[in-house]
Amino acid sequence: MPKISNKGKQMPESPIRKLVPYSEIAKKKGHKVYHLNIGQPDIKTPEVAMNAIKNVDIKVLEYSHSAGFESYRTKLSQYYINHGLPIDVADIIITTGGSEALLFAMGSTMDTDDEIIIPEPFYANYNGFSTASGVKVVPVISTIETGFALPPIADFEKLISPKTKAILICNPGNPTGYLYSKEEMMQLAELVKKHDLFLIADEVYREFTYDGDIHYSVMNIPGIEENAIMIDSVSKRYSMCGARIGCIVSKNKEVMATAMKFAQARLSPPTFAQIASEAALETPQSYFDEVITEYRDRRDTLIAELNKIEGVKVANPKGAFYCIAQLPIDNADKFAQWLLESYDLNGETVMVAPAAGFYSTPGVGLNEVRIAYVLKKEDLIRSVEILKEAISAYNSK
Amino acid sequence: MPKISNKGKQMPESPIRKLVPYSEIAKKKGHKVYHLNIGQPDIKTPEVAMNAIKNVDIKVLEYSHSAGFESYRTKLSQYYINHGLPIDVADIIITTGGSEALLFAMGSTMDTDDEIIIPEPFYANYNGFSTASGVKVVPVISTIETGFALPPIADFEKLISPKTKAILICNPGNPTGYLYSKEEMMQLAELVKKHDLFLIADEVYREFTYDGDIHYSVMNIPGIEENAIMIDSVSKRYSMCGARIGCIVSKNKEVMATAMKFAQARLSPPTFAQIASEAALETPQSYFDEVITEYRDRRDTLIAELNKIEGVKVANPKGAFYCIAQLPIDNADKFAQWLLESYDLNGETVMVAPAAGFYSTPGVGLNEVRIAYVLKKEDLIRSVEILKEAISAYNSK
Repeated sequence: MPKISNKGKQMPESPIRKLVPYSEIAKKKGHKVYHLNIGQPDIKTPEVAMNAIKNVDIKVLEYSHSAGFESYRTKLSQYYINHGLPIDVADIIITTGGSEALLFAMGSTMDTDDEIIIPEPFYANYNGFSTASGVKVVPVISTIETGFALPPIADFEKLISPKTKAILICNPGNPTGYLYSKEEMMQLAELVKKHDLFLIADEVYREFTYDGDIHYSVMNIPGIEENAIMIDSVSKRYSMCGARIGCIVSKNKEVMATAMKFAQARLSPPTFAQIASEAALETPQSYFDEVITEYRDRRDTLIAELNKIEGVKVANPKGAFYCIAQLPIDNADKFAQWLLESYDLNGETVMVAPAAGFYSTPGVGLNEVRIAYVLKKEDLIRSVEILKEAISAYNSK
Repeated sequence: MPKISNKGKQMPESPIRKLVPYSEIAKKKGHKVYHLNIGQPDIKTPEVAMNAIKNVDIKVLEYSHSAGFESYRTKLSQYYINHGLPIDVADIIITTGGSEALLFAMGSTMDTDDEIIIPEPFYANYNGFSTASGVKVVPVISTIETGFALPPIADFEKLISPKTKAILICNPGNPTGYLYSKEEMMQLAELVKKHDLFLIADEVYREFTYDGDIHYSVMNIPGIEENAIMIDSVSKRYSMCGARIGCIVSKNKEVMATAMKFAQARLSPPTFAQIASEAALETPQSYFDEVITEYRDRRDTLIAELNKIEGVKVANPKGAFYCIAQLPIDNADKFAQWLLESYDLNGETVMVAPAAGFYSTPGVGLNEVRIAYVLKKEDLIRSVEILKEAISAYNSK
């Protein structure tokens, strides 16, 4: 019998998928499960995008250009410019989601056994893309005490080896909700320039910032045009996760020419979704205003409620729609499983994402969970109520 | 300045893209270019698929299941069963085109520096996927003299090393149009069983067979269930290249569990295109009958016309919609460029794909071209007329 690859064996399983069998158990018991675990927004997709699809008039559903429709790239460049990002059409390759953009970025810049430094906790699938690319993740720990701010630059420098090729950040962060300040971005810029590294910034939550904080993009930093690679996606911006449209952006011509070879091998990004994404650029500002207001309300509600639980520590997120909460429990993996398998409050329970899966260092974040505030306010209030009672019941088992 | 990866440097450029600047020159001169170089069919996408998209009623465009919609996988399994392929729902993961299915297959079965044996000439992007996966392609030469039949098994055995993990075939073949017989498939089955290798069969042209020849799938071979991986796609079957929907199919549970980890990392295949692909399964048989008749006519016309040119040797394709033709010229790369840059017959010229790009062994196939018969009959006749005159003009330069 032929053997699968070692790479395949090392491919991580999603920290959330492990819980799916237990959520099935909860459902079988007839329990209502509040999903605090997922990054799938409940926000409506803009009508302008869905209408474009309903009005599609295509005789032959052809391949598009491997870099994506030129019309889409042109409008996207203008969108960025309008948002203060100096991005030309030539700096953009449309990808199949931010996922493929990350694969192209890693494939274009790193070889087998090269190292990428990532502040942890980080988006769990960075592990999968790194393994798939043969790249080694070197984590640098950020802590709940600082609200998951950028770790000291000295911590990065300690980890830099001849194998280090890139630093990857998610800004604002999934799972932390942290938004890097301009000052932090400038520190990173200096670091990557000094050591000739790429700075890959996953900015798919760019629009989701609260409290008047301004997002400072990797594309806004002068002097690191050759180092900067931006990852973007329509998934969260327009609540179009199922489209699978993103892009890789860089002013480094060599990177873009290389990413283009990866793009050509897979022929083209999906046509229907490009049509919807191009149309989505016409989404009125009022849509975003409403969405941001809704998320800010949800965040404020969630954080206020969580802070009412004794022993819970939570970093107030400045962006995205996640937070990391430290719970007064022994082990979040066990707790999350128990919530689904053995607990209910009047027939209701919650599903949370144990945070250990977002750390690369073993044994870190064991009593932390990631909570996504993609549910409406009443449901968030009820969820935290359940969580509070559950913690108490769990600890007096 | 940070350096791109060696992998990136090794990523091959498409053999056709190199000609694009020259086709721009031809267009600037006002010349009409007949595209014999492309694999994009001119056949209409089934209405049932396009109507499903027009009638889409989605409020939130969510991620789908990472393995694809269950409804789609269920119907697809039934489709395969109806076509004599014993494929269960659990044997299928929906992918973003056949391209992603190939990446998943390679990633799940092969590590850096592992080897994959592929009969050449082969689909040029196999080189790209192999490089992206860190895998080394070991070509085994098939020749125009045998019509690109399976090379002798002894030739494969000479190339098998401890690093060999898989054999990859395209059946029917792009670029050869060759259809492997049941006997040839059984020989391959015996070989992979003997040496514990995977047999990856790219069967995206399965329906396109002529002369009453029956396609014998890798999934039809008894006794190699653990070795067999099938790659499929809707691109050619329904003329839906822009959908970017394919699948990886295997009865090997370990392979499927591993491919699923790759699938989860990238979240999900595109939603709109899955809707269209699921609907496409309702395409009436009359659609295929018409399409096959059209392609058979085109093939017969093309081959008959090519055979009229002195010095041209062409293998009669039994399937797909390509053929490899040996031309009485010194170098097909130079000739293809010259056709676009310097030649016209009454303002018209042709674009062909030099076959060297489909071989991995340097120096092989230098006077061969791949011709796709995705144009209507009159255009094929005119194209070959131009080709004939061009060969004569080229050789008397």
